[in-house]
Amino acid sequence: MSTAGAGRGAGASVDVIGIGNALVDVLSHETEAFLETYELVKGSMALIDSERAHSLYDEMGPAIEISGGSAANTMVGITSFGGSADFVGRVRDDQLGTVFAHDIRAAGVGFATPPASRGASTGRCLILVTPDAERTLNTFLGAASEIGPEDVEPAAIGAAQITYLEGYLFDQPKAKEAFRRAAALAHDADRRVALTLSDGFCVERHRDDFVALVENQIDILFANENEICTLYDVGDFDAALQNVLHHCEIAALTRSARGSVVVSGSDVHVIDAHPVPGGVFDTTGAGDLYAAGFLYGFTHGYDLGRCGQLGALAAAEVISHLGARPETSLATLAGSLLS
Amino acid sequence: MSTAGAGRGAGASVDVIGIGNALVDVLSHETEAFLETYELVKGSMALIDSERAHSLYDEMGPAIEISGGSAANTMVGITSFGGSADFVGRVRDDQLGTVFAHDIRAAGVGFATPPASRGASTGRCLILVTPDAERTLNTFLGAASEIGPEDVEPAAIGAAQITYLEGYLFDQPKAKEAFRRAAALAHDADRRVALTLSDGFCVERHRDDFVALVENQIDILFANENEICTLYDVGDFDAALQNVLHHCEIAALTRSARGSVVVSGSDVHVIDAHPVPGGVFDTTGAGDLYAAGFLYGFTHGYDLGRCGQLGALAAAEVISHLGARPETSLATLAGSLLS
Repeated sequence: MSTAGAGRGAGASVDVIGIGNALVDVLSHETEAFLETYELVKGSMALIDSERAHSLYDEMGPAIEISGGSAANTMVGITSFGGSADFVGRVRDDQLGTVFAHDIRAAGVGFATPPASRGASTGRCLILVTPDAERTLNTFLGAASEIGPEDVEPAAIGAAQITYLEGYLFDQPKAKEAFRRAAALAHDADRRVALTLSDGFCVERHRDDFVALVENQIDILFANENEICTLYDVGDFDAALQNVLHHCEIAALTRSARGSVVVSGSDVHVIDAHPVPGGVFDTTGAGDLYAAGFLYGFTHGYDLGRCGQLGALAAAEVISHLGARPETSLATLAGSLLS
Repeated sequence: MSTAGAGRGAGASVDVIGIGNALVDVLSHETEAFLETYELVKGSMALIDSERAHSLYDEMGPAIEISGGSAANTMVGITSFGGSADFVGRVRDDQLGTVFAHDIRAAGVGFATPPASRGASTGRCLILVTPDAERTLNTFLGAASEIGPEDVEPAAIGAAQITYLEGYLFDQPKAKEAFRRAAALAHDADRRVALTLSDGFCVERHRDDFVALVENQIDILFANENEICTLYDVGDFDAALQNVLHHCEIAALTRSARGSVVVSGSDVHVIDAHPVPGGVFDTTGAGDLYAAGFLYGFTHGYDLGRCGQLGALAAAEVISHLGARPETSLATLAGSLLS
């Protein structure tokens, strides 16, 4: 066990603070034909407006509501490992906002952002799960897009070893400002900043911004194969890997069933995917929970290889059932990996 | 295949119309200790007020929202078998009301009751699932309790072979009036009336009413062992069975893992429970789905033994996963049982 996470973590009272879109997931099982009819790109996240959200919901089958949001899922994963986490994100003072706030607090995550008392309703993500367990996301941001720099408290950022940001925030100007302010505050407090690229289309929409950001402000980068290849506009994983090596301190790159690669300078780990005994049921949250396992390991002083293994373990748990938050204690599941 | 369901079904365009509490279930996994702390009686349904709903929700772990309501679940089960069903129940014009209406319509059930534009919010049922897969219900009726006789349309009742009523309606004066009106209208139209006793405590609260009702107005009675014993204030199942034989045309009595008994005069069937290969996960909805299978079979002319088998099959499906509505097509699952 090395002390990879030490140093800049000194004096922090919280492992990770996450900033992201506060969303309630609305999940239904749909056929491939359904995706074709509504011209949805499987595996991607599309931003939709209120009108589209209503018309798509009308066409969806019976659904289940579960709190979600990428960075929020990651924070819940960290507490499931026994770590500590805060979340910053905006809901409205409506029923779905109450659900979101209840669920994240019940999971042990600190959540102090006050709900908006006017404006759009709480954001939701309509998630269509196809028979191959892939998920296609349609996000109505609603109140989530109202997150702004004023919601980022210097004391809260300074209290966390790592500030974790989701790339999705780049889709909204105010949220992007919040993102930049958080990164600056974290570095001012001698803390690390982590980013997840979130989605290939999101990366494509903001490629230059993301490249500059990764080079200058991000210490720990999370991306899947599609996202990292899109970021560097290259056709294969190894080419992307060679690029990222020079651009940030640590990169954790996930490749679905092919496992993940963790790199930090010359320190490279190739991690196998964790088995899913009952089969993959719903891939929603795989990347979010990988980041949770990794960040828990990192902030508790495990070496990067072990961090990757913890990420793989958490991802395997969340894809074995519906929804993007763990159903069983990740600390218990991890067992000897945490010794 | 006999024609048990024929005769009084002639000319009906809908198999079953259900009247009940429109509720969204809020499910979380809790320990036995949690039930003790909050003095909850495992396996029962308690009516709670808004204040208690808030304080209990605050203490519950992360939850999942799924549309529920006893009679509503049964109607969804009937459509999953390929039957036709309508539902009458009240929600408010809020987010949870939208969820309820979406889910029941997406399942193919007709739902025409307009949402209330004032008054209490949409009702919800806080469901605590303990490690033994038992569920303990805490119902805040909210808008559901506003259902009244004016919501019962003679044309809709007359169009259905069977009017299915949940005993829970007896807890609210207006709902009870709706119940009585529906039963009277159904009989006026030469249709059958079915009742589920819903819950032992509910039966205890209204025992005399229920006994008179079963004797005079109910053609098909659904009850579990606890409910039927409570109804006749007897200590064992066989004693209850001897009572019910003289009181209504058909009784379907469920006994959890011990299967069910269907009686109609001298026609008696003892049905085994259907196996649950992956194990019982959450018993919520077992009785509701038993009724669905039974009523689908009955309205499609199957004999009473087969009706009981279809009930057992549907109950087995719904207890194999979280939530009280089927996740897979019951028509497909039933396969040769429907030949």
